[in-house]
Amino acid sequence: MNPVEVIIRKRHGLELEANEIREFVHSYVNGKIPDYQMSSLLMAIYFMGLSDEEIHGFVNAYVESGEKVDLSFHPLSKIDKHSTGGVGDKTSIILAPLLASLDVVVPMISGRGLGHTGGTLDKLESIPGFRVDLSIDEFKSCLHKHNVCMIGQTSTLTPADKMIYALRDVTGTVENAGLITASILSKKIAEGAQGVVYDVKTGSGSTIKEIDEAGELAKKLLKVSAEFGHKSIAILTDMSSPLGYAIGNWLEIEECVRIMKDYPNYDHRSSDLVELTLVLGGAMLMLAGKCQSIDDGKLKCMENLANKKCYGKFVQLVEHQGGDKSFIENPDYYPKAKYVHRIKAMKDVYIKNLDAKNFGLAAVELGCGRMQVDDKIDNTAGIIIEKKDGEIIKSGETLCSLHANDETRIEKAAHLIRKAIEVSSEQPILKNKILEIID
Amino acid sequence: MNPVEVIIRKRHGLELEANEIREFVHSYVNGKIPDYQMSSLLMAIYFMGLSDEEIHGFVNAYVESGEKVDLSFHPLSKIDKHSTGGVGDKTSIILAPLLASLDVVVPMISGRGLGHTGGTLDKLESIPGFRVDLSIDEFKSCLHKHNVCMIGQTSTLTPADKMIYALRDVTGTVENAGLITASILSKKIAEGAQGVVYDVKTGSGSTIKEIDEAGELAKKLLKVSAEFGHKSIAILTDMSSPLGYAIGNWLEIEECVRIMKDYPNYDHRSSDLVELTLVLGGAMLMLAGKCQSIDDGKLKCMENLANKKCYGKFVQLVEHQGGDKSFIENPDYYPKAKYVHRIKAMKDVYIKNLDAKNFGLAAVELGCGRMQVDDKIDNTAGIIIEKKDGEIIKSGETLCSLHANDETRIEKAAHLIRKAIEVSSEQPILKNKILEIID
Repeated sequence: MNPVEVIIRKRHGLELEANEIREFVHSYVNGKIPDYQMSSLLMAIYFMGLSDEEIHGFVNAYVESGEKVDLSFHPLSKIDKHSTGGVGDKTSIILAPLLASLDVVVPMISGRGLGHTGGTLDKLESIPGFRVDLSIDEFKSCLHKHNVCMIGQTSTLTPADKMIYALRDVTGTVENAGLITASILSKKIAEGAQGVVYDVKTGSGSTIKEIDEAGELAKKLLKVSAEFGHKSIAILTDMSSPLGYAIGNWLEIEECVRIMKDYPNYDHRSSDLVELTLVLGGAMLMLAGKCQSIDDGKLKCMENLANKKCYGKFVQLVEHQGGDKSFIENPDYYPKAKYVHRIKAMKDVYIKNLDAKNFGLAAVELGCGRMQVDDKIDNTAGIIIEKKDGEIIKSGETLCSLHANDETRIEKAAHLIRKAIEVSSEQPILKNKILEIID
Repeated sequence: MNPVEVIIRKRHGLELEANEIREFVHSYVNGKIPDYQMSSLLMAIYFMGLSDEEIHGFVNAYVESGEKVDLSFHPLSKIDKHSTGGVGDKTSIILAPLLASLDVVVPMISGRGLGHTGGTLDKLESIPGFRVDLSIDEFKSCLHKHNVCMIGQTSTLTPADKMIYALRDVTGTVENAGLITASILSKKIAEGAQGVVYDVKTGSGSTIKEIDEAGELAKKLLKVSAEFGHKSIAILTDMSSPLGYAIGNWLEIEECVRIMKDYPNYDHRSSDLVELTLVLGGAMLMLAGKCQSIDDGKLKCMENLANKKCYGKFVQLVEHQGGDKSFIENPDYYPKAKYVHRIKAMKDVYIKNLDAKNFGLAAVELGCGRMQVDDKIDNTAGIIIEKKDGEIIKSGETLCSLHANDETRIEKAAHLIRKAIEVSSEQPILKNKILEIID
């Protein structure tokens, strides 16, 4: 295979053969094809797209580059959920223990924060001692014992995807439905899931701004998943404003813990988060064959939230993965950020929208995320939204508070937040977070 | 400047600012931007193109990356010729001494063979002792003395272009009119030329297959040249069959030497080469202000070929640049390739076309070019065309002979040649090599 010829054929819009894709990817992993040829191929793919067959080829090449977890020892259905990433999106933290408590195995391999979006791994690591870098054997043993385990992509699972994703991130080649599909699906196949619910987000806080593109990605995910014998459901959801009231690693864990403890009497600012979690949970139960409809599944989820089985499972999970459960039991004991800056209303207005992207960027600015690969994450930093979009706020009331340990970071974050607030003199009509369910 | 943002903006088709282009290019040269980001930007440029302003930005960035030769000490006009590359294209070897003999300074910086196309430097180096790696001071001194000097791109002249060209070659991003224009023009500006005649080739043996694309490139070259105060003329020429009768480094030098010595009684198989050389020479004289029309300039060129002033200048040039002039004076003494394989006609037919690309590839196969960057060039290898397109050939007559020092290379080359021959039972109508003159 001549790498330049492969690049030029893709550049001309021709379809690559499965064995060419395999050889290109594996030669890249082995260092025989340099970064600059892979990035040039990725940019050509950005423009010319990938056919379903080509996506299939990439999925196989990614999966074959590492080991595949064999979960056949476990008799229950293995169902995962994947979100394309958002701001304040913490559904995984509740869904994983919730489904495990409903006799579904959740082998969840998550990612870190990227750009303005948060990452499940960073959130979990804000629990002192919590280990996300388990070995595959530890992963299987945790699933055996608790039906659930939440880890990061290990070096042995789809290493080709890991390398190529990192390259895409620094070469402007992330936003392509074919490449995104291959990346997501390869991890789900390698982790041993049998079915996946895809939360495909759209709007300012998502990496996919347009609903048409999100729909296209959802359809690709479903089609290629089916080709691999995976059952799946895609849910298009709105990410124009943050989900729930907390943004920031520990602050988001705390919001989830309070929901799991207080349900059904949880803070009303978590309503959108709870509703989305229930729909995703219902869909996961559908895929596991444990209910007749998503609505039926939602009822089962509500039951295990209300009876605290979900909460109990979460405490078990935290303990098993080395986390200090005392902070889960008593979130008030968790350290607080040194500085709190309140953004207040200047007059009585309705909040029409809180732009998710700017809230996400502000959270990164406060220390929740990384601007450079090796930046240290600040667990206690973040944003608490006091008034959600659709609510009225009176002059002098706090709209949100910014939490930081470095005072110098607040000004820029506050500037971003001020840009993010859209107000209205009339009560705005809010759109539903759940835009479409595709299966 | 965030390199990823620059890549994404170009990917979206937005115009880059001159200072962004400058910083991107200079950071690349300084190692602050890695190959993989540059190649991803180049592929985005392949798809989205470059505006004239952006090409301008690249030219400046390339020129600024190195030194600029100051030829103001020389009172005569400095005019160069640039060809986009072909098979058997050896016009530079005659044009440089020819124009120098007509009181035009020719500061010629040429390239090496690339793919199936030959390179002027490789041809010159087949003359024993000929040095193309002169310093800028030696270059100026040679121009001062002889009005002509023929060298390669030094490490101090447009080093950014040199690095980026090498990267384009291995990342499938060569064929873009904007990038080609910036690369060519930057070298012409840096070498101190005041005007350039562009020989823009089209057809199978060219890197640009379609005449529309060649026309687009020619217009871009003229427009951006004018913006830099350069006078220029573009000549669209046909490269569907090889130029002249020889392909191969020394074989091409020998063809040129024989023309310079024998004119006007040269071998009829060199007619297309001589005609193109005269047109290009006439155009160069026009740019130098030494004639009223290209036809007028052609007459002056013919005169200095016939009176052997061109030949005399070539001998001076070879001597000054360290070459052994005895082989120019007596080409028959030059070593011959060990093996000669003749391709013969099986029946009486007209030769309709000799596909230039396959002839070029066959020549590389015989040892004239490089398949890998560090391949050694075989000076005596090559192809001699006995019957040109348009001629009749009788059964048993030799159509061409393949010259090689490694017998194993002949079979593959012969296979390529056989594929390259197109015959006809009727006398074919040949198209003119000169398709269009644009100024």
